[in-house]
Parts: sequence; C-alpha cells; structure tokens
Amino acid sequence: MLRISERAAVFPDSPIRKLVPYAEAAKAAGRIVHPLNIGQPDIKTPQPFMDTLHHYGKDIIAYGMSQGEPEFRQAMVGYYNTVDIDVNADDIVITAGGSEAILFAFHIVAEPGDDVLIFEPYYTNYNAYACMSSVHLRPVKTYAANGFHLPSDEEIKAAIGPRTKAMFISTPNNPTGTVLSESEMHRLAAIAREYNLYVISDEVYREFCYDGESHTSVLHIKELEDHAILVDSISKRYSACGARIGALVTRNHVVRDAAIRMAQGRLCPPVIAQAAATAVAKLGMDFFIPLREEYQRRRDVTYEGLMKTPGVTCLLPKGAFYVMAEMPIADCETFAKWLLTDFSHQNETVLVAPGPGFYATGKYETPGNGLNQIRLAYVIAPEKLERAMEILARGVDAFLEATITAHKS
Amino acid sequence: MLRISERAAVFPDSPIRKLVPYAEAAKAAGRIVHPLNIGQPDIKTPQPFMDTLHHYGKDIIAYGMSQGEPEFRQAMVGYYNTVDIDVNADDIVITAGGSEAILFAFHIVAEPGDDVLIFEPYYTNYNAYACMSSVHLRPVKTYAANGFHLPSDEEIKAAIGPRTKAMFISTPNNPTGTVLSESEMHRLAAIAREYNLYVISDEVYREFCYDGESHTSVLHIKELEDHAILVDSISKRYSACGARIGALVTRNHVVRDAAIRMAQGRLCPPVIAQAAATAVAKLGMDFFIPLREEYQRRRDVTYEGLMKTPGVTCLLPKGAFYVMAEMPIADCETFAKWLLTDFSHQNETVLVAPGPGFYATGKYETPGNGLNQIRLAYVIAPEKLERAMEILARGVDAFLEATITAHKS
Repeated sequence: MLRISERAAVFPDSPIRKLVPYAEAAKAAGRIVHPLNIGQPDIKTPQPFMDTLHHYGKDIIAYGMSQGEPEFRQAMVGYYNTVDIDVNADDIVITAGGSEAILFAFHIVAEPGDDVLIFEPYYTNYNAYACMSSVHLRPVKTYAANGFHLPSDEEIKAAIGPRTKAMFISTPNNPTGTVLSESEMHRLAAIAREYNLYVISDEVYREFCYDGESHTSVLHIKELEDHAILVDSISKRYSACGARIGALVTRNHVVRDAAIRMAQGRLCPPVIAQAAATAVAKLGMDFFIPLREEYQRRRDVTYEGLMKTPGVTCLLPKGAFYVMAEMPIADCETFAKWLLTDFSHQNETVLVAPGPGFYATGKYETPGNGLNQIRLAYVIAPEKLERAMEILARGVDAFLEATITAHKS
Repeated sequence: MLRISERAAVFPDSPIRKLVPYAEAAKAAGRIVHPLNIGQPDIKTPQPFMDTLHHYGKDIIAYGMSQGEPEFRQAMVGYYNTVDIDVNADDIVITAGGSEAILFAFHIVAEPGDDVLIFEPYYTNYNAYACMSSVHLRPVKTYAANGFHLPSDEEIKAAIGPRTKAMFISTPNNPTGTVLSESEMHRLAAIAREYNLYVISDEVYREFCYDGESHTSVLHIKELEDHAILVDSISKRYSACGARIGALVTRNHVVRDAAIRMAQGRLCPPVIAQAAATAVAKLGMDFFIPLREEYQRRRDVTYEGLMKTPGVTCLLPKGAFYVMAEMPIADCETFAKWLLTDFSHQNETVLVAPGPGFYATGKYETPGNGLNQIRLAYVIAPEKLERAMEILARGVDAFLEATITAHKS
C-alpha cells in the first residue's frame, strides 16, 4: 500500500482559506461578500516597482546570488538605516517571502522535535513552517482584555521546556495588531539571555503603527546582538504580496552562514521581483505617511464598528492590519460559515476568519481556544469597511436571534 | 552557550560554487576564466517572456493561488500535451523552482529519518533538499564505462532498505547527461510496485535529448499512475533560471493534496514570473529545434575536446548540458583548484566542478568516489567551448607534468 508520510498527512490546511468555497458559493448565488478574511491590501503597488518591470533590460533571466542580489541588499541597508537598524549587506539573506525566512530560521535554531515558544493567538501559517521544519510550537496565551500584550515573566518562563530553542514574536502582530513596547522587548531579551534562546521576530508590518506608537525592532535591542533573527518582507510594506520577496536578517554570523548554505540549496530568490523591489526599497519613509494614515482610518472604522456591536470585546489595536475580537458568540467557526450560507442583509454578507485557527488548540492546551473570537483584516477602503462592519453587526444580531429561537423551539 | 542546530551546522556548502572565490581571484589577477562549472545557459530568455514583463498590466502584485495561477497551469497542460503527457490543471502544483518541488516531494514521501534511493553521481543540490527534509539519500552507484545507465535490478533491490520510500531519478541526467530508456523506466516501475516506492523524476532537461534520442517521462509509464511524482522547471527549458518557476506534477491525488497544503503554507509562488512563464509555455515544440541543435553542437565540441585529451573516459552524453568525465588524475579537487591558482595558458584557464560533490561519499560508501572525475557544463558558445576544452587539455598535461616532477624531486 502506497502511503504518504505522517508529517504530510497531518500538514494543516489553511484555516483562513477554508471558508473560501462558501464565499464563492455565496457570490455565485448573487450576493456581495465583503472580504475581511485575508491580509491582501487593495493599495496599489508603488509605480517604481512597475516601472522596473516595464523597463526590465536584461536579456537572460539568469540565476542570481543565493544570498540575494547585492544591489537589492544594499538598498535594504539604506531602508534599515532609516528605521534605525544598523546592519550591512552581509547580514541580509534575501528569501522567497517572509515564509522562507521563517522556514530557514526554524531549521537553524531547532532540531526536529525541538520546540519554539510562541505567543498565541498567532498567525496561522506559522503552523505550516513548523510542520515543514518538524518543530513544535509551544504556545503562551495572551488575552484580549489586556490588548494581547505579553504575560508576566513567570508565565513565559513556565512555558520554556528543555527543548525550547527560541521565542517567536510578531510585532506589530498578526492577528492581534499589538505592538510590543520597548520594555516588553527588554523583558524578552533578559529571558532569552537567561535561557539561551533565540528571538525570531516577524516585523513585516513595521511601518503600520498608529496613534504615534513607535516600533521597536528585535535588532534595536543591544543585548540580543547574537540572539536576534529578524524576519522581514516587502509584501505588506509595498503591497507586493505576490512578488515573494522577504529577508532573514541577523548579526549572528553562524546563523547567517547557515542561512546562506540553505539559500544556496535552493539556488536563488526570484530575480525579477528583486530588481523591482530595489526600486521601492529606496522610496524612503515619506512614502509611508499617507499609507499609515489610510490604514489608521481603516482601523478606526473597524474598531468603531466593533464597539457599536453589543457584547464585543477588543482593545484598540496599535498596528498591522488586523483586529482579533471577542464576540458574544460561543462558536465563531459556525458563525463565520453561517454568515456565508444562511445570512445576508440587503443581499450582502461578510467573510471573516474564525479564531481557533490562530491558536494551537488541542496540542498543549485544552481545545476551544479562540472559538469565541474572529480576526478581521482591514485592508479594504474605509467606506466599504464601514458598510462591512454594519453587515457584520447585523449578522451578530441575527445569529444570536436564530440561536435563541433554536434553543427555545 | 547559544548554538545552531546540528542539522543547520552540517548543512552542506555548494561544492559547485566553492571554487568561485579562486576563480574571482584569477579574474582579478587579469586572467580569463572559462566557466564550465554551472548550468547557467548563455541563451536569451524568449522574447514573449520579456514582453509580458514590459507590458505587465496589473496595479497590485497581489497573492496568487497557492497551487499556482490557473492560466499558467492551463498553459502547462498544453505544453505537457505536446510531449504526450496527459494531465490536467488540477494535477499541477506550481513551485518556486524545481527546488521547492523536490522539497515538497521529499516531505510527502518520507518521514524524517526515512531514506530515498538515488543513482549516483547525482546533482549536488539534492543533498540540500534532503537536509531540509531530514531525509537520507541512499546512493546506488552508476559507472562512466556504461554511460551511467541503471545497474542491474539486483543491485537496485539490494540498496532498498526498510525505510526506503522512493527512488529519485533525473532524466536527462545532471551531471551525467544520461537519458533513461523506456525499458529502464519500466524496470524502475516494476521495482517501485514490488517495493511500494514512489518514483520522483526530475525532468527539467526533457527537451535536450540529442542524436534523435527520445525522452521517456515518469508520467508516460502507466504502471506508475499512483507512484509517479514529476519535478519540473522552466529554468533550463526557457533559459529563465532566475524566475524560480517550477512544478510538482502527479496523478496521485493524496500526494497532490498534500503538496497543495504545503503550497498554502508558503502562500503562493512568484506571480510576476508566472505571468511571463505563461507566455513561453505556449511557444510549442518548434521553439526547441534550433535550441537543441545548438546544445548538440556544444556537446559535440565538449566531447571531442575530452576525447583528444589522453586518458579521459566518458561515453557520449545523450542529453542535458553536462558531461561527467573520468580523468587521468587521482584528485580532481586539487586539480580544479590548481587550474585557478597555478595554471594558465596564454593567460586563460577554466573553472570545472570536481566529481566528489556529486557522490554521497562517506555516508554509505567508502570515501573517494568521484575524486578522479569532473563535471563540465556546456552552456557557453561553441567557439568559446572549443577554446576552453583546449585550455583544459593543456591543463591536464601541465598538472600531470607538475605532479610527476614533484614526485621525482
């Protein structure tokens, strides 16, 4: 009997994408479905990116350097300098999206069977990279009530096991929107040094911090000189998700050299997109000012919509494009599906991501984590968002009504 | 003490690229270095590929489908049909180069610690994908004297262990240029069925078969319906190595679904390059006629050059861009480096890939395999190749002379 491996058999489906067939069916039935489920911005990719494609001058799309094109890495150095991150081109390994940077980082810090501590809720695709690396994610829970900030040092230390090799953070966070403060980063640094852990930090939403909140990078923390592995990507920053250009950045030369060997293994990152990314990496910080304002407006509309909905708990998120909301609904998996199959208001409905996909439910903790939560991505225009939030609020009402009626009958 | 994982620490360097610093030094010293080391063709990427970039019309480089863009997969179906491979768009998972397809395939067929049988000499980067997957490559030796064709069934079966999950082949082969015959493919099929093994087949050089030799794909073999996993890439076919567009193709739906889940994990393959690849996938078979003639000329020049060099053994390779030659030199690692550091003829020298990198030396077999061999890539223009082969022949003479002199003194 021909079988696939157990690791492939248990490889997780994307919980964010699994409602898509229901959304497609709703659309096919003529309904408008407002997409609040994925972080695909509707912002145009900057013109210099497109101009580079339109004037691409090489005759041969040849292999590039495994570590990434020197010109692009140099442009990235310039970009990092503007956000007070002092690195040089040798510290940067260009990857096929932030995804590949995480894959390399997991392989480098952990043996198969080792574990990496992570704060949950967390971005569901991290499970995929953990599977590809045979690494266990060891979750430490954070809570909506305190804005999903770090738990106490004691709680974090209690989660560290003999095979824990790293802490994985995301700041600004997907799915919570939480921006870790400088003092939180120093707390993590102290723990990392005490327990000899790497700190892998996904900072792809760096520019999207609101209300004047400032971002602290793992590479800003002097004590983490050897411990810090930055995961980065141009996907969100320049609205170029499909380009698949990311980076692993570290000042630890042993880590970097291992990443370069892995990079050699897969030959090179995409070269055409790197040329275009070089142009946008030089755009400077002014580029982000109107963009940040736009996203802050979207965040405000989303948050106000949630606050108008009775029973919803969430603190105002300070960054990224997401909000994780606690709903007055026990089972948001059912609710999210019901919105697509059984509900509409004036022929409109919404597609949201149910909470459980963002928790390592059932692995180390009791099942059911996140079942009363949904994640919303605020990546569509404010007027559309406003409407979507109104539809969502009506959906909550109608779902509760239907549930009560069902219970009564 | 902060350490990296053992798997990262032992992750292999690219043996093909490790002589590059010596080549750079030779160039810096004013010498001409003819590159015979890597499979980077000097052929121009077809104009329709470039035209697509120059007229790229989308405003947002958004995420594409994880499995690959439907249009591109449909164009690939058309391409496969022209080479008598009957598949549909659902059977194709687009990957970031053939590299990622191999990575997915290894994860799908094998648990960490399982092994995959491979015929050596083999393309050195397979070691990297094996490391990334914690899979052991279990080599079965093939020999220059019989054109690196398959050994007997008995020899192949003797190499299959309790944890062997697949046989990995490459046809036309890198580094040997060997094209497996239809009857060899049927022999593999019988063994695969008897031992419940997958057959993973890297066929990225499919179009480059010479002397009228015809190519047999793993997907041509009916008995392998469930067993066959095709690894493909546009890199060599359309001289677009830097685009990073490959594919995993299988009629086994369990394998395919696992590959799609892994593909969802890393979100999507590069979208810009897929658009351009769609244009070239439609070029049809006539496109390859002059290209194949050109490569055959290059093969002939290379082979003739080798045959003129006393003591060299190799059969005329029937496909791909490579020849693996047995040299009258005991240590070709030293020889290849010496060519760059100590030798020149009229201020010219050559960069070649030493044989040992293409053998799993020291793992399952005695060390020293391939030490008397070099791999040459014939990817430069015939007149340059002719000159390079002359320089190489003089290098062999001079090296043997120097060695004899050293022994005498």
